[in-house]
Amino acid sequence: MRFVDILEKKRDGHELTGEEIEFFIEGYTNGTIPDYQASALLMAIYFQGMTAEEQGHLVMAMVNSGDTIDLSQIEGIKVDKHSTGGVGDTTTLILVPLVAACGVPVAKMSGRGLGHTGGTLDKLEAIEGFQIELSEQAFIDQVNTLKAAVIGQSGNLTPADKKIYALRDVTATVDSIPLIASSIMSKKIAAGADAIVLDVKVGEGAFMKTVEQAEQLAHAMVNIGEAVGRQTMAVISNMSEPLGEAIGNALEIEEAIATLKGEGPEDLTELCYVLGSKMIVAAKKASSFEEARHMLKTVIEDGSALQLFKEMIEAQGGDGSIIDNPKRLPQATYTYEVFAPQDGYIEKIIANDIGVAAMLLGAGRATKEDEIDMAVGLRLHKKIGDVVKKGESLVTIYSNTEEITTTREKIERAIQISATKVEKQPLIFETIGEA
Amino acid sequence: MRFVDILEKKRDGHELTGEEIEFFIEGYTNGTIPDYQASALLMAIYFQGMTAEEQGHLVMAMVNSGDTIDLSQIEGIKVDKHSTGGVGDTTTLILVPLVAACGVPVAKMSGRGLGHTGGTLDKLEAIEGFQIELSEQAFIDQVNTLKAAVIGQSGNLTPADKKIYALRDVTATVDSIPLIASSIMSKKIAAGADAIVLDVKVGEGAFMKTVEQAEQLAHAMVNIGEAVGRQTMAVISNMSEPLGEAIGNALEIEEAIATLKGEGPEDLTELCYVLGSKMIVAAKKASSFEEARHMLKTVIEDGSALQLFKEMIEAQGGDGSIIDNPKRLPQATYTYEVFAPQDGYIEKIIANDIGVAAMLLGAGRATKEDEIDMAVGLRLHKKIGDVVKKGESLVTIYSNTEEITTTREKIERAIQISATKVEKQPLIFETIGEA
Repeated sequence: MRFVDILEKKRDGHELTGEEIEFFIEGYTNGTIPDYQASALLMAIYFQGMTAEEQGHLVMAMVNSGDTIDLSQIEGIKVDKHSTGGVGDTTTLILVPLVAACGVPVAKMSGRGLGHTGGTLDKLEAIEGFQIELSEQAFIDQVNTLKAAVIGQSGNLTPADKKIYALRDVTATVDSIPLIASSIMSKKIAAGADAIVLDVKVGEGAFMKTVEQAEQLAHAMVNIGEAVGRQTMAVISNMSEPLGEAIGNALEIEEAIATLKGEGPEDLTELCYVLGSKMIVAAKKASSFEEARHMLKTVIEDGSALQLFKEMIEAQGGDGSIIDNPKRLPQATYTYEVFAPQDGYIEKIIANDIGVAAMLLGAGRATKEDEIDMAVGLRLHKKIGDVVKKGESLVTIYSNTEEITTTREKIERAIQISATKVEKQPLIFETIGEA
Repeated sequence: MRFVDILEKKRDGHELTGEEIEFFIEGYTNGTIPDYQASALLMAIYFQGMTAEEQGHLVMAMVNSGDTIDLSQIEGIKVDKHSTGGVGDTTTLILVPLVAACGVPVAKMSGRGLGHTGGTLDKLEAIEGFQIELSEQAFIDQVNTLKAAVIGQSGNLTPADKKIYALRDVTATVDSIPLIASSIMSKKIAAGADAIVLDVKVGEGAFMKTVEQAEQLAHAMVNIGEAVGRQTMAVISNMSEPLGEAIGNALEIEEAIATLKGEGPEDLTELCYVLGSKMIVAAKKASSFEEARHMLKTVIEDGSALQLFKEMIEAQGGDGSIIDNPKRLPQATYTYEVFAPQDGYIEKIIANDIGVAAMLLGAGRATKEDEIDMAVGLRLHKKIGDVVKKGESLVTIYSNTEEITTTREKIERAIQISATKVEKQPLIFETIGEA
């Protein structure tokens, strides 16, 4: 097999076989296929796309390029959840104990990553003592006893995906739906997922800017799941404004606790119900989304979801008392309010700019080397469509410095007020995959 | 300027500026832009194409990436001729003295290359003593006195083109009209051409398989010429059967001599008239193609074209007596005939297979290291559409070995005879660029 023939075949719009895709992934991972041939293939894929079968082969070849996590010792169907990323997205922190409290085993491997706030791992480290490193056996045992554990990624998962991603980043081939879909799915499958629930974010604060793009990505991933025998469902949710109210690490832990008590922001709570229902159905613990939603409501109302969160924190060495007293989480020295400059209706809360404002305070990392300040962040008091009075607080800034001019300006520019009535934004545009 | 932005721009179908194209060529030549980014751009160009302006910028950036030949000391307009390559193409050998005899300065830099026979340089080296290495000054002086000289390429011309060509070869981006056109034009301009006449071959024995492809390539090069201020004309000529009768190095020298005497094969002679007329008009030595054709006829009939060939050979140290006695050229030890197996009409002479048969005898190089046997080759006695009788010779094989089974079989399979009448093939499909 000559790689240049594979290149030509894809360039001319023909479907590659599983063997050809494996030849590419193996050769690129072990270095016999050079970067310059791989990048030409990636660009050809950008233009010619890939069928669901090709994407399935690509995913499994990337999974097989490295270590995989064996969760077979855990009883039941292991469902993983993935979000394509947005601003103020606290859903993972909530869903882990919430779904686990319904009897679904949640063995979550999470990441740090760059962005407006830390990843799920960083947020959990806002809890004093919380250990994100467990041995594989300890991880499995904890999920079998408690139904929930969250750890950092161990082992060398999907090295092919890492190498391809780095190449895509410098060759203008990031924006390819089949490549994005395959990358996400390979990581979930290598981490041991039997079934996958996807939250595809759409809007100004997300990677996908239009519902059509988000639909394409969601369908691509659901089709891959079908091609490789992993039940996959997807939700397309709105990220034109931040999700929930809190943006920041300790602030989002506090918000997760509130939501698990049934006192969380409406949009965040609803999205957790929708995603959680899908996870429960995918795990075959309920046969309909209605039944699953009822289970979720029950474990919130009877306190068992919150209790499970506490037990998980304590099992991983963390200070469980933060559940009852969230003020024990890191607190910022200063708070400032951003006031509404006029009466009216909230027209825009530009999610990305709000995220950058939080990052400027120290809530997230711009580069891998940056340290996160767990205490800082923002709390939004309004959503798009809300009525606002001049002088009312729109946002509370939690800062460890008095110098917040740039942050304040960024927030002021990000929030636009209209004199005339503005419609509320829909939370969910579409759900894909049936019970 | 970030190269990834340039990549994205081309990927999305936008026109690159001259500055952006120079940034690419300079960066790729000096190594600051890596192969993997360059190959992604080449693949994006494959899909999105390039405007005539972009191709003009690309050509001049490649010209400026290395040395250029300064022919300003030569009086008059320097016209170069380029053929996209075929089987049995002896036109350059004929056109150099033919056009020079009409007063057009022909300062020809030629190559060796791989293929069915040697390049023009190899063919000239079939003449005992012929020197293809002259100093730049000796080259210029010879053109000023004799009007003609043919030498090997000196200096480091268009290194960017060489580097890009090598990358295209391994990334399935060879078949891109804008890239092919820019590569050809950059080499001609770096070699000092003021005007360029192109012979774009089409058919089974050529790189371009259809007239439409050939038209695209011809128009692309003529448009580049316009964009960079070099008058460029093109002819689209047939290469579904070999051109002329001889395929081999000494055999083609002999055929060139015959043609300069007015005794050459009809198709080869006519193509030389058409290309030569264009060269004379481009050099402004005639104002119409008819006038130019008349000049060419005159220098053949009065013997001055042949005389000039002899003088050029002698000026470059070669044995001029071959003009009067072509049998002084290297002669093969053995000759064999390939006979017609049946009566009928010649339906096909598959040019590429005939070329390979000549290469098997030793007339051309399969790899750079191969040595050429100047004496060997083939002489065709029939053209498509000709009547043939069973037992008549179709081809004479000139060989230095008695083992010619493979060659003979290749030739037998390459020539197809039909029982019913077959039309003659057109020689020229189209000419582009007016007087």
